[in-house]
Amino acid sequence: MEDIIQKFGKRIKELRKERNWTQDEFSKISGFHKNYIGMIERGERNPSLKNIETFAQAFKITISNLTNNIEENGI
Amino acid sequence: MEDIIQKFGKRIKELRKERNWTQDEFSKISGFHKNYIGMIERGERNPSLKNIETFAQAFKITISNLTNNIEENGI
Repeated sequence: MEDIIQKFGKRIKELRKERNWTQDEFSKISGFHKNYIGMIERGERNPSLKNIETFAQAFKITISNLTNNIEENGI
Repeated sequence: MEDIIQKFGKRIKELRKERNWTQDEFSKISGFHKNYIGMIERGERNPSLKNIETFAQAFKITISNLTNNIEENGI
């Protein structure tokens, strides 16, 4: 069973790929270091609310959209 | 202008008061220390995704509901 940070990571990766952004491009857009993005996508980091806001802004969606149904997004 | 952690704090306080829970009661329900809840409600702490999940679970709502329209929830 995946935990919430793994589910969040999958969502981030999914949204990034929908936009056809590489991790490097997403790094430039979001301002986050490429390594941080990799760790987030693999569910290895527990992002803060402020960073969640930055991710949402990078995708031009709301935090609520970013986390929509995230609890059910597991394997 | 309020930042996202102040808006989140207001939402938490609002939901707690809707349920007529004191901070002490909410502390017992959520498992968070009363001091942490006070700091969150005052927008003094930047909660992690795991803690946001715990808040949502304490209110028996989804993370997406907890953060619904939070960006516009300012003064």
